[in-house]
Amino acid sequence: MKVVTIVGLGLIGGSIAKDLRKADPALTFIGVDKNAENDRLALQLNLVDSVLPLKEAVAASDLIFLAIPVTAIRQLLPHLLDIMPSQAVLIDLGSTKSQLCKAVEEHPNRQQFVAAHPIAGTENSGPAAALEGLYQGKMNIICEREKSSEEALATALQVFDTLGMNTIFMQPEDHDKQVAYISHLSHVSSFLLGLTVLDAEKDEKNIFTLAGSGFASTVRLAKSSPDMWAPIFEQNSQFLSQALSEYIFYLQRFQQYLQNNDQEKLYDMMKQANKIRPVLDGITQAAEAPAK
Amino acid sequence: MKVVTIVGLGLIGGSIAKDLRKADPALTFIGVDKNAENDRLALQLNLVDSVLPLKEAVAASDLIFLAIPVTAIRQLLPHLLDIMPSQAVLIDLGSTKSQLCKAVEEHPNRQQFVAAHPIAGTENSGPAAALEGLYQGKMNIICEREKSSEEALATALQVFDTLGMNTIFMQPEDHDKQVAYISHLSHVSSFLLGLTVLDAEKDEKNIFTLAGSGFASTVRLAKSSPDMWAPIFEQNSQFLSQALSEYIFYLQRFQQYLQNNDQEKLYDMMKQANKIRPVLDGITQAAEAPAK
Repeated sequence: MKVVTIVGLGLIGGSIAKDLRKADPALTFIGVDKNAENDRLALQLNLVDSVLPLKEAVAASDLIFLAIPVTAIRQLLPHLLDIMPSQAVLIDLGSTKSQLCKAVEEHPNRQQFVAAHPIAGTENSGPAAALEGLYQGKMNIICEREKSSEEALATALQVFDTLGMNTIFMQPEDHDKQVAYISHLSHVSSFLLGLTVLDAEKDEKNIFTLAGSGFASTVRLAKSSPDMWAPIFEQNSQFLSQALSEYIFYLQRFQQYLQNNDQEKLYDMMKQANKIRPVLDGITQAAEAPAK
Repeated sequence: MKVVTIVGLGLIGGSIAKDLRKADPALTFIGVDKNAENDRLALQLNLVDSVLPLKEAVAASDLIFLAIPVTAIRQLLPHLLDIMPSQAVLIDLGSTKSQLCKAVEEHPNRQQFVAAHPIAGTENSGPAAALEGLYQGKMNIICEREKSSEEALATALQVFDTLGMNTIFMQPEDHDKQVAYISHLSHVSSFLLGLTVLDAEKDEKNIFTLAGSGFASTVRLAKSSPDMWAPIFEQNSQFLSQALSEYIFYLQRFQQYLQNNDQEKLYDMMKQANKIRPVLDGITQAAEAPAK
């Protein structure tokens, strides 16, 4: 493996480039981004050795990563499997998996593709947001492993191992349903909490003077990029809508108890929610675990 | 000022004791807590010099802090103003202010009381959760300053200055409305997000394997103590219910756009929510500012 192309030079693609370049200085990295400013920044930050148009980059590559919005991945996937070298491996890093896998399920070169979702990120975006060690100790999911060739799968596993990730295997539908609850719903709740408070601020001047660390923590994801998240929500709309219905149901029930001054029921709901503590302690410990 | 009584030896009361003891080792601290285990721990952690029954502690005090759930503050306030020494100052640290101020508005000793809300905390509780420097660089609100005597107000301002806080003045109704949006709504959204995902986990095994730092950040407040928060929600039910209605309205609208696959409207909502970024950057900078 000598030439690696990163399509999408943002937080996700840029962070992968940083770690893989460090791990193996012999590799050559080509960047592809339709935004010329991202190309310029990625070169300046030394994330890649050169930038090229997609077609040229792919023709020269042994390994290609797709780190672009999931709508763009869905469009590009069949085309890339058409034109890429027959020994090359294509890995997508999108946060949804069902529609992407479906887009290439009948493709004759399907075995060259590995459908992955490394669960890592921050609320920032663009090449300057790329972080060394972003993936260290985090989970990675590979879907439909049985549809990738042994060689492609081995290449992908080696990459994610180099990044310090723990890879598990799932089917696309299970993946999408689970991330609807565990990731996408968090983002929606945060975006709309931000919107609600920004709205309130129009009437209540200087409301943000009173904001503390709790507010900051809960609303942090409202800083996330709509370019990345609108496509994710679209592709996972069914499961996300189901998760939203359940969340709204709980909020309405809570509001009703509040209006009825039913202290006991309010208390019980919060006591139940407290059961999230050991789960969160586990996530924090995993994030703070030393490098392997 | 020689003897300070802290009623409620948890995160809030314990953290105040830590900083004030450090600032002036000549002060004597008495602890009051109806939970004997908290009394024992507070002594062991050297948060206070002794523990006493409420009445005895108050009789011996120059300064009394109330760091207990707001329902208990509302009940105790008039009684304490009845029995406390005539030169002593009483400061409550509750997260709601309207009902507490109303409970003593006609009390002949109202001027000995200062209604405060230091905006600081973590999701942890109990004496062991007490932190040195918890209040450093944070906001403090004092309500109805005009109803406290000059001496009581000066004492309170000196205390909050020693803690490193920036004090502003508000009327109780304004305070309660603003914290409903900026703090209480965040807690409700977090509690119920936790509940929704815990619920989903019953069907989708191992869902938490996929949880990343975004989920952890958004759900962190779901670890908060129901003993503290149920009374806050009760006392601020009107403003909180209004905030909840607006939040639910946004969630329902988002869900509708999602179901209609209205990408543009979804994108616009997120873009609007992104305007929270400079606000959050401001909060983070304030939290990280060096000590005065």
